Amino acid sequence: LLVTDPLRVGVVGLGRLGRIHAENIKNRTRALELVRVADTLEEVARSAAAQLDVPWSTHFDDVLCDAEVDAVVIVTPTPLHASMIEQASAAGKHIFCEKPIAQDIESAKQAVEAAQRSGVQLQLGFHRRFDPDWAAAMRRIEAGELGQIYFFRSTLRDMEPPSLDFLRDSGGIFFDMMIHDFDVARWMVGEVIEITACGAAIADPRVAEFNDVDQGIAVLRFANGALGVIDVSRSAGYGYECATEIVGSRATVRIAHGQRFNVEWLTPGASTTDYAAGFLERFPQAYLLELEDFAAAVRDGRPVRVNGHDGIGALNLAIAADRSRAEKRAVPVAPIQ
Amino acid sequence: LLVTDPLRVGVVGLGRLGRIHAENIKNRTRALELVRVADTLEEVARSAAAQLDVPWSTHFDDVLCDAEVDAVVIVTPTPLHASMIEQASAAGKHIFCEKPIAQDIESAKQAVEAAQRSGVQLQLGFHRRFDPDWAAAMRRIEAGELGQIYFFRSTLRDMEPPSLDFLRDSGGIFFDMMIHDFDVARWMVGEVIEITACGAAIADPRVAEFNDVDQGIAVLRFANGALGVIDVSRSAGYGYECATEIVGSRATVRIAHGQRFNVEWLTPGASTTDYAAGFLERFPQAYLLELEDFAAAVRDGRPVRVNGHDGIGALNLAIAADRSRAEKRAVPVAPIQ
Amino acid sequence: LLVTDPLRVGVVGLGRLGRIHAENIKNRTRALELVRVADTLEEVARSAAAQLDVPWSTHFDDVLCDAEVDAVVIVTPTPLHASMIEQASAAGKHIFCEKPIAQDIESAKQAVEAAQRSGVQLQLGFHRRFDPDWAAAMRRIEAGELGQIYFFRSTLRDMEPPSLDFLRDSGGIFFDMMIHDFDVARWMVGEVIEITACGAAIADPRVAEFNDVDQGIAVLRFANGALGVIDVSRSAGYGYECATEIVGSRATVRIAHGQRFNVEWLTPGASTTDYAAGFLERFPQAYLLELEDFAAAVRDGRPVRVNGHDGIGALNLAIAADRSRAEKRAVPVAPIQ
Amino acid sequence: LLVTDPLRVGVVGLGRLGRIHAENIKNRTRALELVRVADTLEEVARSAAAQLDVPWSTHFDDVLCDAEVDAVVIVTPTPLHASMIEQASAAGKHIFCEKPIAQDIESAKQAVEAAQRSGVQLQLGFHRRFDPDWAAAMRRIEAGELGQIYFFRSTLRDMEPPSLDFLRDSGGIFFDMMIHDFDVARWMVGEVIEITACGAAIADPRVAEFNDVDQGIAVLRFANGALGVIDVSRSAGYGYECATEIVGSRATVRIAHGQRFNVEWLTPGASTTDYAAGFLERFPQAYLLELEDFAAAVRDGRPVRVNGHDGIGALNLAIAADRSRAEKRAVPVAPIQ
Repeated sequence: LLVTDPLRVGVVGLGRLGRIHAENIKNRTRALELVRVADTLEEVARSAAAQLDVPWSTHFDDVLCDAEVDAVVIVTPTPLHASMIEQASAAGKHIFCEKPIAQDIESAKQAVEAAQRSGVQLQLGFHRRFDPDWAAAMRRIEAGELGQIYFFRSTLRDMEPPSLDFLRDSGGIFFDMMIHDFDVARWMVGEVIEITACGAAIADPRVAEFNDVDQGIAVLRFANGALGVIDVSRSAGYGYECATEIVGSRATVRIAHGQRFNVEWLTPGASTTDYAAGFLERFPQAYLLELEDFAAAVRDGRPVRVNGHDGIGALNLAIAADRSRAEKRAVPVAPIQ
Repeated sequence: LLVTDPLRVGVVGLGRLGRIHAENIKNRTRALELVRVADTLEEVARSAAAQLDVPWSTHFDDVLCDAEVDAVVIVTPTPLHASMIEQASAAGKHIFCEKPIAQDIESAKQAVEAAQRSGVQLQLGFHRRFDPDWAAAMRRIEAGELGQIYFFRSTLRDMEPPSLDFLRDSGGIFFDMMIHDFDVARWMVGEVIEITACGAAIADPRVAEFNDVDQGIAVLRFANGALGVIDVSRSAGYGYECATEIVGSRATVRIAHGQRFNVEWLTPGASTTDYAAGFLERFPQAYLLELEDFAAAVRDGRPVRVNGHDGIGALNLAIAADRSRAEKRAVPVAPIQ
Repeated sequence: LLVTDPLRVGVVGLGRLGRIHAENIKNRTRALELVRVADTLEEVARSAAAQLDVPWSTHFDDVLCDAEVDAVVIVTPTPLHASMIEQASAAGKHIFCEKPIAQDIESAKQAVEAAQRSGVQLQLGFHRRFDPDWAAAMRRIEAGELGQIYFFRSTLRDMEPPSLDFLRDSGGIFFDMMIHDFDVARWMVGEVIEITACGAAIADPRVAEFNDVDQGIAVLRFANGALGVIDVSRSAGYGYECATEIVGSRATVRIAHGQRFNVEWLTPGASTTDYAAGFLERFPQAYLLELEDFAAAVRDGRPVRVNGHDGIGALNLAIAADRSRAEKRAVPVAPIQ
Repeated sequence: LLVTDPLRVGVVGLGRLGRIHAENIKNRTRALELVRVADTLEEVARSAAAQLDVPWSTHFDDVLCDAEVDAVVIVTPTPLHASMIEQASAAGKHIFCEKPIAQDIESAKQAVEAAQRSGVQLQLGFHRRFDPDWAAAMRRIEAGELGQIYFFRSTLRDMEPPSLDFLRDSGGIFFDMMIHDFDVARWMVGEVIEITACGAAIADPRVAEFNDVDQGIAVLRFANGALGVIDVSRSAGYGYECATEIVGSRATVRIAHGQRFNVEWLTPGASTTDYAAGFLERFPQAYLLELEDFAAAVRDGRPVRVNGHDGIGALNLAIAADRSRAEKRAVPVAPIQ
């Protein structure tokens, strides 16, 4: 791979986010080149390929065997992540994989070790780390501007829930949604030593049938003594919201809900602004920048910014939260060996 | 008048603002005491007096002859201001008078001189100087935080126009509305040496019948070299707005549109906040604080903060704006002798 | 008591908030009349009385025996509240008492019953219910605009902690601070059936010496199925913050952090606004309105808006939070008999 | 030109904005392809070409003679615009040209006619029309949501002025800066029939040496009866600001100053946010979208969204403003024949 060449990738899994990744690679950056796409559903693969003007297939193997492919972007359902990472590692392809890395620690560890043995890069899709707002805040935190951290808060809310079918296979709210906030917590504040979590199936009680909730809360105790609260919702109604706040001894930082447009409509007595309705509206740049940074890491041979251990770390917190919710008590978080 | 006693006042003119002044004095402060009220309409005077539990009359003389009255609060129509100031001066009563002080410079000067001769205090009702927002900004301006001033802007908008009858006798938009912004300009930036103004009768073309407009703009050139723009509207529709901005070499200050409540309603895609609908909602404190400061000035024998010369200064700008609008050219502002 | 007369009150306990209550009654309202003040420290009582121009004493009995006194405003340390309510009840005085009503349920019940037996009114000092922002939100909630409630959040933060001496006797963060949020939770959402709480002594570890914390979190489960989170801090550093958010099926409402002035300072690259530094800056109106409403309830013989049972309800939640923190588990909230 | 192929362009003039256009074309879009770059300064052309990996030259002719070039992007100094449009037209190249189209109406007309005769597309660089904020507002205006328009305001401020050398050749503040706001006024409200303008050389009096100002104000009277105010500044100090407001009978719309990040820093008493420091931070998307739309118009054979007549219309207002400032009177705007 010459340093001036784009990273040639295949995108595997062409659901909503897979399509976004593929389109960004195709149209919005010279750092990556879209070589092929794959999805187990032929119709999905075929139509995406037509629009993007690249070859398609329904088998992951076709991507892995393509010598033109430097790296794979895995956007398939969670249960497939770990084994696909292992396969891609065996094929010598660099890997960008959506979260969570797996649904259990053992599988996650094996996947990470497979990538390490093969010497390929593995980056997890925690896109918030690349969003300009979170990145700007983190630069000032790293410069020490907050002082000692006392309190962390993160909120993640969808406007409307995905389908029940999706939810049934999602692994549950702590694994599918809150995992992003667990990553932000570890990234911005540090390791977590205790979690107390709970939830409620209130907007759509049917999620209780498969032991899930649509409102989840986790209280975190960090190794450095700080406390934290994460709240997530499948059904905020008013829109998508993703916000983080960190209170420190010297300053407090807030990353707020994003407006869709910087436009205010004033009608009698009321000022109205549009809010982002979903993650694609809130994070258009982050989804592009994380892939460009992955390409740069591969090209320059430097470590990726969100590696396999970060994937395991966040998964570990989701597992603890799930147990705390079941047992209605604080659960210590076991360090990863 | 003992220093610990409240200033005993009579309120004359019991329209909307006169009632506000009377109620503030009666219920919200110990610095003034409401002794009596007057209005030429007996019904108005009688009903206000009943609610406020004070004597009433329909003649200004009754107030002036009342030995219990230390000061008068004049909230009558503009054409009466100057002569009532002269009468009150002759009666030895301190005077708080709503703006504008008069409709021509000569009458205004005679009124101011009458008060000076009689040794009574005369304060004009430019309430914005006492509003906590403007006052906070002014403290920092006086401390030099803006550096050299480059640009001034002020906006004043009513949600809906007053009645055509009121407008017909109001003296015109520059005298009735923009006079507040002229005062703010002089207070915060300094003297004005040139005005270019224009207007349009667009929301209700009937105001053109008496040569008035319902949208007015004035461009100011200050003696210190700064430029300024004032825009006023009788019919902003969305609410009442009063806002000021000053751009300086070291900083810029903005005093913004006020929300009614610090509450945000989020519905699908939209965030809504309530805006103030009128001056009473925007300036509840300013209308109280200006009277308390007037009482304190009388009690302590110190100069009032908005004196008769400020009344003449603002009137002088209104007159120049009116001429500029008629002649479609920049008009130099003659200094007051 | 004639309906047109002010409610004559004695203020007992002249610390920071006691002085605010006394000054509001003296200077800012005609609905109450300050008849006398009392504090066990003679110097404190004497100086307040001199400034307010009323008699003083160091004994509560002097207030209770004063036939001119219709009602007492109790602003003494928490351990005294219950017994002073009983004494005032016995003396036939109406009672406005600061929170919390007591430190244990039994004492609180006896106090409430004493007031009921004597036929006097008892109102608790949960001022947020009277703040225009919370009140405006509540009116729309009561009109059903939120739909089904899913999630509640409340935040209460002091800029700097009180003295260690104050904290040692405060009863702990759940009783002294979070009790306000417990009341807001009950008022705006409904009864709570389970609490999970934790805390950390992080800004000043010395509070751990008397088993207190300076950061506290409580997760609430409401009887109607909603979840809630409250976070409080003694040391937010940046300022005082009091904010509430409620997510519902039809809308979400936010009551936000208050600015001190509606003024923005723009310097190179940065826009700065002032935030309120303490509860007196955030809630100037609420502290006045709660007393006026108390006076109106007494005058009109209607129920007060925050009664003794509300005091017990909030106390009950503080007790459950304290136990949850100690036992590191979810604690069911026993209904009050 | 096949519909699926990118538009192949040469960028001419590699100053700050020329480089931005070239980099956007190279790295951020598949709708255009960067074929070559040119600048009269060899060093500038050479270094840009090296970074962008395309051929360079110092002669416009080299670009015009290149059969691979479908269109030219002209980002040269204003005095060259009209003649370069004519040359490109003669060479059959489509044209994207930065504002203003010329410095006098006659040259502008000849340029527009040349493009028309040659059947090539000509688009002007009024990027605000493509910014998501302005575009979102305009969609709702076109849907009639404002009702009748009463008032228009637009503000454009640079943080720091360009060099005196640049200013000396810029054509003056009305031609170089306010021309953007003139275009927005025409686009969002309609034709202007009268202008009254003034200015001051206050931040740097040296601009007066070549009869320019660094603060400019123009008051507009629209054909539909609305009034408008534009204020521009070379030296706002606090940052770059570009904001527009339109007051209508049914609603008012505000497009506000943009934050750099959606991040708030809270320190004792103050909340601080970052503001955009320049047009590149404020309009990253607009500069990309205007070129993509130009490419789409060429590809689809549909009219461009900002054509040569829009260029002449804005220029006509700048000329009237300049005359008004000189003659200190309202100047009627002659319709373009």
